[in-house]
Amino acid sequence: MSATTTAPRSDQPGRIMSGEMNEQPAVLRRILDQGAPKIRETAERIAARAPRFVLLTARGTSDNAALYAKYLLEVLLGKPCGLTSMSTTTAYGARQDLTDVLVITVSQSGGSPDLVASTEAARAAGAITLAVTNNADSPLAAVSEFHIDVLAGPEKALPATKTYTAELLALYLFVEGLRGGDGAAAKALPDLAQQILDRQAEVKQLAGRYRFAERMVLTSRGYGYPTAKEAALKLMETSYIPALSYSGADLLHGPLAMVDNISPVIAIVTEGKGGQALQPVLERLRGRGADLVVIGSQAEVDRASAGFALPTEGVAEEVQPILEILPLQMLAYEVTIARGQDPDAPRALAKVTETR
Amino acid sequence: MSATTTAPRSDQPGRIMSGEMNEQPAVLRRILDQGAPKIRETAERIAARAPRFVLLTARGTSDNAALYAKYLLEVLLGKPCGLTSMSTTTAYGARQDLTDVLVITVSQSGGSPDLVASTEAARAAGAITLAVTNNADSPLAAVSEFHIDVLAGPEKALPATKTYTAELLALYLFVEGLRGGDGAAAKALPDLAQQILDRQAEVKQLAGRYRFAERMVLTSRGYGYPTAKEAALKLMETSYIPALSYSGADLLHGPLAMVDNISPVIAIVTEGKGGQALQPVLERLRGRGADLVVIGSQAEVDRASAGFALPTEGVAEEVQPILEILPLQMLAYEVTIARGQDPDAPRALAKVTETR
Repeated sequence: MSATTTAPRSDQPGRIMSGEMNEQPAVLRRILDQGAPKIRETAERIAARAPRFVLLTARGTSDNAALYAKYLLEVLLGKPCGLTSMSTTTAYGARQDLTDVLVITVSQSGGSPDLVASTEAARAAGAITLAVTNNADSPLAAVSEFHIDVLAGPEKALPATKTYTAELLALYLFVEGLRGGDGAAAKALPDLAQQILDRQAEVKQLAGRYRFAERMVLTSRGYGYPTAKEAALKLMETSYIPALSYSGADLLHGPLAMVDNISPVIAIVTEGKGGQALQPVLERLRGRGADLVVIGSQAEVDRASAGFALPTEGVAEEVQPILEILPLQMLAYEVTIARGQDPDAPRALAKVTETR
Repeated sequence: MSATTTAPRSDQPGRIMSGEMNEQPAVLRRILDQGAPKIRETAERIAARAPRFVLLTARGTSDNAALYAKYLLEVLLGKPCGLTSMSTTTAYGARQDLTDVLVITVSQSGGSPDLVASTEAARAAGAITLAVTNNADSPLAAVSEFHIDVLAGPEKALPATKTYTAELLALYLFVEGLRGGDGAAAKALPDLAQQILDRQAEVKQLAGRYRFAERMVLTSRGYGYPTAKEAALKLMETSYIPALSYSGADLLHGPLAMVDNISPVIAIVTEGKGGQALQPVLERLRGRGADLVVIGSQAEVDRASAGFALPTEGVAEEVQPILEILPLQMLAYEVTIARGQDPDAPRALAKVTETR
């Protein structure tokens, strides 16, 4: 059995991840200033083709961005959507009839061979194909009929942060473009993101709570659910704490048995209908004596064990996920530092040297 | 903070769950003998309506059965599919155009109000609606245009077992009916299921391995992926071990950092294209010195740390999930007994008496 591979500690653990997290307000501003007109034009050309169904294809962090887009497309546009099970094409060679289907493939690098193969197959099957990537020169962009560049600049840290929020904003502006909206709800995001990032000290204090946690549960409903999934992924990638994410409705079924005072719970309480739908879940968790940390409004935080109050008053519910994830990225970073590990050097770096 | 609520120990812990697991060969036989003609007729009537897109709606264990159906529909029928994000209808009141869409709602009880509301909304939006339930008199069956009864008989244990395999088989026969197949691949399943259930002692020995496990990772690809998800849910519901499930492709991204010799891994290696696509993942896991337990062919088990060999030689890949889950249900049961808990009395029973 091989030993655990631990990358060498750098002088400034987490410097790369931290730097990229802090670029986020500038990236969001860049998308609004430079990216929006092109995104709107792409959306108008696709809207003219009148797709009836939408399939979203992605992996990892980008899959959580795709799930966010699924909520937007269903709620704001009333389009039936699905997330692709990629192996049906790449392993089983399924031949689907994708006439009238818009296939959106989301990928930071645009370089993953299975995403490229899956998109090529979709295009051959009659789909309108759109790539959303951070690399306009990528193979994925090349094989897709349409392409949106999320303009986040090179991402070097293994845990993706700025490309996630960039994908969310680009997808929001795209869906707004499809329905002829002006995307005005996004205008305040860069300043609000900066306000959140300036509160690192608060997150650091919150992180102390998870110094010795052996597991975590994240939950939300509606637009906040992709945030719960992405936060769980971020925590696992950096700190290796097994972090489970559930929609509030699913949590009330089996997995609630696992909660109680053993597993700390983080709830993302979006201001709006998603947060309202989560209320019965929060009541059950409080009733069970769970350690409940809330990312949401000040009023929601006050009713929990602890939390991080978001400046989301008056912010449209559908763009709140672009802010909600920020304190959770910061939390993954701070928990990892608190546990004496380096967020820039997850064991996955051992990818390059296989242990034997 | 409340104390952990533990239900009283019965004289025969796990008696109810064990009894229902052992009914599975008889339930599968009942579906083949008594259910199949009605399922075929329903499939033919729906096929005549020529749906172009399929949405699947479910929660918990039934959601894993729905995911299995998604693979069948995509691979065998080439129909684009999606899993419903239910809150888009129930919380956000999204108004979708579901013309040409088949909406399949899978639910053991058929009684969950949000599933009923979501199905009613789908029918009003123009969808062809099909309920797959274990209760022909349920509200869900009543509001759906079509209904398939999975004929599993009353299920009393909180961890669903026989209704899961019954849902899988009913959905397989339905998809076969849609494409004019005869479902012959399923004929051998009741006998093979009995062979597996007779090997309880082997599973009990395997369970010793997880007596002190603090986390588990389950992985598979293709048709076996719903099995990985359902096994993780079963382990959590009964033993409270945080069990994470990933498609093999997703595992190779971030979450692999979490594996190594800290988290034991169970891989479901379906015989066929799904198992072939999983090979690079198995190699990486072996290379990292992971504790790898395989549910699959004898040859695959021999190359792992341990495992359970399935009698799947010559069995069509698309029906193997109906067998694969059986040793994992038994494992959840045995691990829970080994840890001194009662599979019939998960803490979720505290549902009825809220702690304060």
